[in-house]
Amino acid sequence: MGDEQQVHAVALRAREAAAELTPLTRAAKDAALRAMADALVARSDEIIAANLTDVARAVAAGTSEAMVDRLTLTAERVAAIADAVRHVADLPDPVGEVVRGSTLPNGLELRQLRVPFGVIGIIYEGRPNVTADAAALCLKSGNAALLRGSSSAYDSNSAIVSVLRDALAGLDGGVPVDAVQLVPGTGRESVHQLMRARGLVDVLIPRGGASLINTVVTESTVPVIETGVGNCHVYVDADADLDMAVSLLLNSKAQRVSVCNAAETVLVHAGIAAEFLPRALKELHEAGVTVHGDDAVRGHGEAAGVPVAEATEQDWAEEYLSYDIAAAVVPSVDAAIAHIRRYSSQHTEAIVTRSQPTARYFTARVDSAAVLVNASTRFTDGGEFGFGAEIGISTQKLHARGPMGLTEMTSTKYIVTGDGQTR
Amino acid sequence: MGDEQQVHAVALRAREAAAELTPLTRAAKDAALRAMADALVARSDEIIAANLTDVARAVAAGTSEAMVDRLTLTAERVAAIADAVRHVADLPDPVGEVVRGSTLPNGLELRQLRVPFGVIGIIYEGRPNVTADAAALCLKSGNAALLRGSSSAYDSNSAIVSVLRDALAGLDGGVPVDAVQLVPGTGRESVHQLMRARGLVDVLIPRGGASLINTVVTESTVPVIETGVGNCHVYVDADADLDMAVSLLLNSKAQRVSVCNAAETVLVHAGIAAEFLPRALKELHEAGVTVHGDDAVRGHGEAAGVPVAEATEQDWAEEYLSYDIAAAVVPSVDAAIAHIRRYSSQHTEAIVTRSQPTARYFTARVDSAAVLVNASTRFTDGGEFGFGAEIGISTQKLHARGPMGLTEMTSTKYIVTGDGQTR
Repeated sequence: MGDEQQVHAVALRAREAAAELTPLTRAAKDAALRAMADALVARSDEIIAANLTDVARAVAAGTSEAMVDRLTLTAERVAAIADAVRHVADLPDPVGEVVRGSTLPNGLELRQLRVPFGVIGIIYEGRPNVTADAAALCLKSGNAALLRGSSSAYDSNSAIVSVLRDALAGLDGGVPVDAVQLVPGTGRESVHQLMRARGLVDVLIPRGGASLINTVVTESTVPVIETGVGNCHVYVDADADLDMAVSLLLNSKAQRVSVCNAAETVLVHAGIAAEFLPRALKELHEAGVTVHGDDAVRGHGEAAGVPVAEATEQDWAEEYLSYDIAAAVVPSVDAAIAHIRRYSSQHTEAIVTRSQPTARYFTARVDSAAVLVNASTRFTDGGEFGFGAEIGISTQKLHARGPMGLTEMTSTKYIVTGDGQTR
Repeated sequence: MGDEQQVHAVALRAREAAAELTPLTRAAKDAALRAMADALVARSDEIIAANLTDVARAVAAGTSEAMVDRLTLTAERVAAIADAVRHVADLPDPVGEVVRGSTLPNGLELRQLRVPFGVIGIIYEGRPNVTADAAALCLKSGNAALLRGSSSAYDSNSAIVSVLRDALAGLDGGVPVDAVQLVPGTGRESVHQLMRARGLVDVLIPRGGASLINTVVTESTVPVIETGVGNCHVYVDADADLDMAVSLLLNSKAQRVSVCNAAETVLVHAGIAAEFLPRALKELHEAGVTVHGDDAVRGHGEAAGVPVAEATEQDWAEEYLSYDIAAAVVPSVDAAIAHIRRYSSQHTEAIVTRSQPTARYFTARVDSAAVLVNASTRFTDGGEFGFGAEIGISTQKLHARGPMGLTEMTSTKYIVTGDGQTR
């Protein structure tokens, strides 16, 4: 069978499974999730053995030590993956929630309920823990999962999916085994087929770098939820508390640099630049962060004896995901908003200010998934927002925006009951 | 300028306008809408004169009388268009509604608010009243409208947009004139460019026939909301009240046949077919409806002396939009659900039954935007649902499903306020 037939076949099985998943009770789904978690722990050795094949292949290919570490599974890491699945079982079930309802003047009773999407395709890079995590979130929200992980983790992902499916097969709770499937194949063609499976797959969620997301968004005929690219800004206003501004900037940039909610550009109001920048540049330097500044920032760097690289157009546009930050001095809050409008990926922006009118002005005009006042950009996260878990952070405006929890993994339908009403 | 540059230029202006629309108060938007309505009435003659050009072109091209009538504007019709715009002003403003909110354990205050999408592109066929209607709904929800109507109504649409823009220009309420724009050009290339304006246009809503919608869904890189194709089913259960079933079937099919929520197939439980079908076939026949039946239905037709055409595969799949209906006898509710799963466009399905368990079973398993119990399919409509107005009926699962009112024309964002919180 070619890739097209293979992907079509798994998608068809997912569609059938989805029909069985929709009416399942929370109790049935939670029991399945707990059985999946137990099976992961019980068959940890098998998973680790499969993972060794991926690791050996990565080492032979000269993959960096950091990447090999991200790929590697240990008994502890498998136990943590199982714990995350159990945690999903503990979360409330979004399916069946009445979003709105009313009784119409003619007596018809209208209810809008949350229902599963049906089939969710997830295309992801990197660590094999995403496999179990995505499967668990899809199952809890009543969706069949079609998982297409990175080819570098193919053996690990296959082993994990095999364990999860065996756990479902061992239950008699009515959860179909095909609720969790790995898309066969490691080539680009199988990704392409998944993106073209309109009518079988209800939504595609790509998780990974900008290039993967861009490919899926441009080529897919299946509706896509864009995730995760974060060119995030911190704007330090003229009325900022400068101690707070230094602390928030350092935390936003350097607490963890490889994540989408890390700050990538700082904009400083001209009115406090002379006071703020020498301190900020020094502290960033001590934290190992390279600053790429405009002329004004470089001037302050020189005066303070801190090296500042020259910012190019690319520095404003780029998501570094490293110990680097772009920095500019702006004459006003409007100039900061204009800069953000031009370069932001509309993920997260923060303002540091003591001025209530300025905070209100900024939050009303900055069009990003999350706009923070006097808080670190690192808070844009499903866990931090209290959603329990997240499948990703949407940077698009359709359907879901910001951290996506179980609620965002559902659609709705209207149920209307009457006693013979006609028009 | 080529079409690409022209579409790009209007989209850029829409983007600028959207930034100004976002923070506008309801009062400013409502004043603009009322000025637009007044201008339509005041300049009715100009609009009708432009419409005459479209009508003359249509007549010369041999367009059917019904189509020419749909295209034609009169003073009364323009007044009705203006009234619809005033009605939109009376509806509540969805922007700024707090969808959810909480105070996190660390003291951060989290609010999720409704915000405009930004720029909405609407590609539509047919009547010029959609032009003012879509412009009004976009403006009320804080969005800039990029309108691409049918080339057959180009002169009418140009005149209407020109009147609306002049009305905005005459105000000093801060509503930018470019809140309402017609996409220049009548060729396919300008539609194509609109579909590729990702990053400038936030969402595209096609309104029209299956072929238009299919083109937009397949070719667009801008996120699309699919609307309006309705292959709707009525299932008459073994436990149906047969008087009610006849009345609901007739209303669902024949009250208005050219609309997406009209019934296109009736499925009849075998247990009541002998009692129900002779009556139903007779009444459908008297209402001028041609029935396309399977063997069982044709047998009942023959016995009752009512002609029934032979249903082909296409009859099950097709949205007739005419005085035709497909009909089949099914052995069980599960068989009805399976038929619907195979052929439905997931718009609206109805069940007629006195059995509470069967109604519950059917509504839980039929995966359509609206599932009705003992009510006519014709109720799936924004006006009937109490939404005040609708921009279309979504048949997709992402973002909006079913009738789309002003609420569905918004996105959300998170505003998070703190006092220096870091992770």
